[in-house]
Amino acid sequence: MSDRRSFLFSIGAAAGAFAMARNAWSQECTVGEIKLPPEELYAKDQNAYWAGVRKQFVIPPDEIYLNNGTVGSCPMPVIQAVSDGYRLTESMTQLDPEDYPIWGYGPWNQFRDPLAKFVGVSRDELALVRNATEANNFMANGIDTKPGDEVLISDQEHPSGENPWMLKAKRYGIVVKKFEIPKPLNANSDVLNRINDAISPRTRVIFTSHISTATGVVLPIKEICALARSKGIASMIDGAHATGMMRLNISDLGCDAYASSPHKWLMAPKGTGYLYVREGFQDRLWSTVTTAGWDDPSLKAERFQRIGSSNVPALWGLKAAIEFAEKLGIDRIEKRHRQLADYMLQGMLKRGAESWTSADPVLRCAIITVNAPPIKISDIETSLWKHWRIRIRGGEPSKIRLSTPYYIQMADIDEFLAKFDDFKNKNARTATRSG
Amino acid sequence: MSDRRSFLFSIGAAAGAFAMARNAWSQECTVGEIKLPPEELYAKDQNAYWAGVRKQFVIPPDEIYLNNGTVGSCPMPVIQAVSDGYRLTESMTQLDPEDYPIWGYGPWNQFRDPLAKFVGVSRDELALVRNATEANNFMANGIDTKPGDEVLISDQEHPSGENPWMLKAKRYGIVVKKFEIPKPLNANSDVLNRINDAISPRTRVIFTSHISTATGVVLPIKEICALARSKGIASMIDGAHATGMMRLNISDLGCDAYASSPHKWLMAPKGTGYLYVREGFQDRLWSTVTTAGWDDPSLKAERFQRIGSSNVPALWGLKAAIEFAEKLGIDRIEKRHRQLADYMLQGMLKRGAESWTSADPVLRCAIITVNAPPIKISDIETSLWKHWRIRIRGGEPSKIRLSTPYYIQMADIDEFLAKFDDFKNKNARTATRSG
Repeated sequence: MSDRRSFLFSIGAAAGAFAMARNAWSQECTVGEIKLPPEELYAKDQNAYWAGVRKQFVIPPDEIYLNNGTVGSCPMPVIQAVSDGYRLTESMTQLDPEDYPIWGYGPWNQFRDPLAKFVGVSRDELALVRNATEANNFMANGIDTKPGDEVLISDQEHPSGENPWMLKAKRYGIVVKKFEIPKPLNANSDVLNRINDAISPRTRVIFTSHISTATGVVLPIKEICALARSKGIASMIDGAHATGMMRLNISDLGCDAYASSPHKWLMAPKGTGYLYVREGFQDRLWSTVTTAGWDDPSLKAERFQRIGSSNVPALWGLKAAIEFAEKLGIDRIEKRHRQLADYMLQGMLKRGAESWTSADPVLRCAIITVNAPPIKISDIETSLWKHWRIRIRGGEPSKIRLSTPYYIQMADIDEFLAKFDDFKNKNARTATRSG
Repeated sequence: MSDRRSFLFSIGAAAGAFAMARNAWSQECTVGEIKLPPEELYAKDQNAYWAGVRKQFVIPPDEIYLNNGTVGSCPMPVIQAVSDGYRLTESMTQLDPEDYPIWGYGPWNQFRDPLAKFVGVSRDELALVRNATEANNFMANGIDTKPGDEVLISDQEHPSGENPWMLKAKRYGIVVKKFEIPKPLNANSDVLNRINDAISPRTRVIFTSHISTATGVVLPIKEICALARSKGIASMIDGAHATGMMRLNISDLGCDAYASSPHKWLMAPKGTGYLYVREGFQDRLWSTVTTAGWDDPSLKAERFQRIGSSNVPALWGLKAAIEFAEKLGIDRIEKRHRQLADYMLQGMLKRGAESWTSADPVLRCAIITVNAPPIKISDIETSLWKHWRIRIRGGEPSKIRLSTPYYIQMADIDEFLAKFDDFKNKNARTATRSG
């Protein structure tokens, strides 16, 4: 098989000269390389190029994974980087005494710097945490509130976005109010007006997703943050889906805090997330998980990543995931995401599904959602996986959420659509028989 | 080399029958086995047996790692288990739809059950979290307090044990009081009396380490918890060091909550920790990092591990670490820990160091601490690492902390002691010249 790889666990090159000098202990080295198709192929045949990229993923070739919105899949160079990280860190040889230990009490700049660059922030505004769930909780728990203070959230938040505030409401007496995002949202003004109408003199925080996990809508975050700022309200954004799905410049959004999970669209290891806190906002947030340094403002955002000994090899994977995305190019990735999602959306519209996805391309990217009664999502989800190894996700009763990460092929979408038709037709026959 | 291993990244056996059926995608399989020396060797020559165990670790043979108290090192079967976990979970094929996804919203019973058995608790009292730091914070943040309520902690807490309470003092007005642990502690009554004297009518919580990170003293936790219970005070224990260092039965200790970091003495991957919450105490703790389920008491301790998509392959490593320890046998491990520590302690006492380690073997285990002025810990730490690849840890100005995990050899200790003498002699000559 041409895409078979030997992934030798190896201390190898990663251990540097010091380990290499120990000949008695050195081992064969097969460090994973990023093997992408040649650039000429992209110019000649983009689908063939992406078929080549697909081979970097360990998802079996006969599986169609349309649920990248839950978690992505690490390509092989990312998995290899994690392995290299294990072999090096577990050897306990990696660092000069002044840097030791690195497991959770350091600046982690070797990981923060490439991420900061990738998402358009400064190192000192970035904390490496477990995931967006944790970052969202650090926001909600971290900010001081009085009973009766209002937090305004959308009606499409992830449970990890909504529940930190619900807990705060029950424990500390804040009030959580929701604004509705139309399904579909077809103009920025539709949501900005609703937010504006929902703001009251007691509103302290606006918390919303950048890209909704429920429908994939890409909200006008820059405008929402400007609105919040104009009224002295803090803006906190759950950007779980944005990192790696499309070009992202967090500083440009103008929010006070931003959470993300690069394990989704950046294809980083699970357990690598980040919290951005704008420098001028840092003194407004208490630490939540604390050890030494929680009361040292000179640490800036590093304060929020002082969370005890952590899984550093996963951060090696995060760094490799950034390199992988940069080698592909984020603009090329975003273009591919849009092409695939548009193709999927057209396919579903042709089949009469009700679109919950915006007709405006600016308000969507790589997740499309439709409502397709009388199909039950639980039935089709199970059926497609069991019979065809096609993984989709949705919500009760009839919402179908389809993620189109760049490693999906056009033929995969055709295959899904054909199986969708089969399921629908079979369902219709069953309904007729029992009706 | 006899101890060289090929660690092929492989979906292999771990993927089960489903993946195996996909011949086109199957790969070579070299699953890591636990290769321990034969039992006969233990009966014949224990040092030779432990020399064989040492070969399962990726710490280079010429390195002497006496800082297991900060973090341990994963043996090869643990690293291999993590790799198997990556290949399987990243293939997105692992689970039936009803179990999907497993990344942070499930019971994780396949990991909780072996750990629960290993530490003597029920599954429903155990939450898998990042580390003891996180678990300590979940305790401190989770319990309701009023301004002026007192929390009694020892003067030997880790920054991750002390600071969650210090933050709570600053933010919510509780009062943190400390009791002193004598250095050395030579009788249980010395610390029990001090705790008893420090308790006031406002004391709500006693929080203390099981095994102090500062001196390695093993505190009489069962008696401390009984004292707390007799006065209606909650008992919360930082057991970061206990798991894997010695036989542990948390239920038997009678505490309300217990935190630990199996990445220390159980040699599990960094980023695997746990929080025990006694069933009758669970309704006293709010969740700290929350998503769906935070207000569902029927989840029991699982509620505290609902922390979003996490690093599941590290949990594969945790499971493998338990299997590794069980194959060695925890009693055999503890015996070895004590032998090594006793040998180290005798060596340091012979050299005139002031012992901060108890003379009573019940009150110590695998960490010994001495005070050795005029040696500066920062100097000797750096010198031993730079010149001899010996890693020790201590505290300013002259505290030396020596961890003796089972993979350390008697000859390693002799080597350390010889280099300690060299350093001391050289230091004395320098002092004489400059004096």
